[in-house]
Amino acid sequence: MSASSPAASRQVLLAMLCGLATSLFGASAPAGPPQGEATARIRAVLDAQVTAWNAGRLEEFMEGYWRSPELSFFSGGRRLAGWDATLERYRQTYQAEGREMGRLAFSDLDISPLAPDAAVVRGRWELTLADGKKPGGLFTLVFRRFKDGWKITHDHTSSN
Amino acid sequence: MSASSPAASRQVLLAMLCGLATSLFGASAPAGPPQGEATARIRAVLDAQVTAWNAGRLEEFMEGYWRSPELSFFSGGRRLAGWDATLERYRQTYQAEGREMGRLAFSDLDISPLAPDAAVVRGRWELTLADGKKPGGLFTLVFRRFKDGWKITHDHTSSN
Repeated sequence: MSASSPAASRQVLLAMLCGLATSLFGASAPAGPPQGEATARIRAVLDAQVTAWNAGRLEEFMEGYWRSPELSFFSGGRRLAGWDATLERYRQTYQAEGREMGRLAFSDLDISPLAPDAAVVRGRWELTLADGKKPGGLFTLVFRRFKDGWKITHDHTSSN
Repeated sequence: MSASSPAASRQVLLAMLCGLATSLFGASAPAGPPQGEATARIRAVLDAQVTAWNAGRLEEFMEGYWRSPELSFFSGGRRLAGWDATLERYRQTYQAEGREMGRLAFSDLDISPLAPDAAVVRGRWELTLADGKKPGGLFTLVFRRFKDGWKITHDHTSSN
């Protein structure tokens, strides 16, 4: 198609001006990498969590979470506030006498960027325990982008 | 302060140009109302849901959800896709033979805007049934802003 309508020309002009505006005024909008990069970075955080968990390194697993009193963690009917309380809950649930961490796997991951600095992740978790039992369930995570990378700011986990 | 540094002048100029750019190129960025307004509008959607539920109007309650096959609904270990499946699940759970809708209340609501067109809502739900029982639990909702208003695009609900 070599013919161009006035509407098409206007669209091209607008696209050019928008590109120029983005270059000039980038500082006025949240500066963010493209969505594909955000998705890859978030996936890397989750992969690192699984690796840490399966090596029994709970504190390293916790690096995926926002280290703040404002972190929120919903599990069943229980609502926890803060990174410290979340770590303590993991310790009690998986490292107390007679408990085990098992082998963790995530599946059905859906990483949806909502903004340059925010995303929601949906997925399924499953632990394989020494006796062959496989507790699991669904999770919803809210990720925000900080200076030191993407972190989980809210985790809602439920069991099958 | 009447003196203005070159840096301050540059900031003023940038702010003016950004305002102009926003007016001219509004279509290229999500045009959004201030956060307080988003919070109020989302709260109104939730209030309307509670009113509809307590009047037994399930379809009206469902207007708070994105009417799309991409709506996702997590409840316990069950993952539903789509508005139709979500309505059907509500019908089976609360309107089938021997079931009742009860009286719904939301509490501990936390509405957090993530972007001009996205927000996450955390809260607690409770039903009061005819026999005095009060099933309840926690929920996490992802809201997106559409042309016809804010809608829930993802609901993760768990029970006590």
